Amino acid sequence: MIPTITAFECSPDEGQGLARDMRVRWALEEVGRPYDVRLVSMKALKEPEHRARNPFGSIPTYEEGELTLFESGAIILHIAERHSGLFPKDANARARAVTWMFAALNTVEPPIVEWEMAQYFEQDKSWRDDHKEMIETNVRNRLGDLSARLGVSDWIDGDFSAADIMMVLVLRRLEGSGIVEEYGNLARYVARGEARPAYKRAFKAQLEVFKAASAR
Amino acid sequence: MIPTITAFECSPDEGQGLARDMRVRWALEEVGRPYDVRLVSMKALKEPEHRARNPFGSIPTYEEGELTLFESGAIILHIAERHSGLFPKDANARARAVTWMFAALNTVEPPIVEWEMAQYFEQDKSWRDDHKEMIETNVRNRLGDLSARLGVSDWIDGDFSAADIMMVLVLRRLEGSGIVEEYGNLARYVARGEARPAYKRAFKAQLEVFKAASAR
Repeated sequence: MIPTITAFECSPDEGQGLARDMRVRWALEEVGRPYDVRLVSMKALKEPEHRARNPFGSIPTYEEGELTLFESGAIILHIAERHSGLFPKDANARARAVTWMFAALNTVEPPIVEWEMAQYFEQDKSWRDDHKEMIETNVRNRLGDLSARLGVSDWIDGDFSAADIMMVLVLRRLEGSGIVEEYGNLARYVARGEARPAYKRAFKAQLEVFKAASAR
Repeated sequence: MIPTITAFECSPDEGQGLARDMRVRWALEEVGRPYDVRLVSMKALKEPEHRARNPFGSIPTYEEGELTLFESGAIILHIAERHSGLFPKDANARARAVTWMFAALNTVEPPIVEWEMAQYFEQDKSWRDDHKEMIETNVRNRLGDLSARLGVSDWIDGDFSAADIMMVLVLRRLEGSGIVEEYGNLARYVARGEARPAYKRAFKAQLEVFKAASAR
């Protein structure tokens, strides 16, 4: 059965691949599973039809027969459990990969999203710079810890796994800030992720959605 | 084998049970598993011995033989997969419970942590009230969506699960703000969690750590 995911009809990042559907696309490409995409407008996100899929009115979602999931972390865990290529076979190594998925989403991503939101919603505030500095300190604390743990390894814990999909794409949200580049090993880690054929196929697929929307 | 978890030696919330070890304690109590606790001082959190357990220098961690995990989400998922009582038996229902765990941690918790951090670190800022209002709008957006989905149900998706442990404890972080009380069904949901015998045992255990530290 081919699953259906949702993505923004009109990419808010203009095809940079920073939206969370990129995580699910990349995971599906890594395991070699085809998928359908339902494009949703910003307005439709908040309507009952989409809220039945995701009560918070965001993307991505994942529909497969009777099952509907939301939250990129849960969707990728679901894919990784059912297809080989995203989780190590050893049970302890798998539990550690799951730990790193949660670390990406609950420890590393929150200050990065705060940084992103501040760019959008605090530009006209007199205290913009003061707050930005506080947020960037928090972001650097997380990235410093992550960089120290990654060291000279290629991936965050052993072989490439679902955790790396999460972490690479969480770090990509800082693009343009120059912050990731302060940590050479993290910048190379992101580049290593972007060089994977599955990443490239996923990136191209989301870019095509943006190009088609722009051409209309 | 009895696992060892870590908790703050000196509870920053003075025994209110808002630290993340409470999540793991509650999960272990629900499945009826004993556990040991290693208390860690604020200073020791940032030292190499603890960073080997958790590279971000926080609690909780979970050690079981050769396996060391961090991130409350990953630890609870690990417990729920290995012992009955925290996940539904049906595979689709289980995937939905996992979705709600991620929703608690990656969608509902981040603005709540932001609200909490602002209480600590922005009290002396001239823009404190302006920012607080923005954060509280984000918190209310999430809680409004959550309240609409919960409706008149006892738990977030079918029977009580690991997702409810996460969501109830994430909502508890707003204690004292009065915000949860604006959504009657969410306030009743939190109270329903707190009334569970396993919750009470977990709460008592963490409170005793605080009492012992205060008595020294």
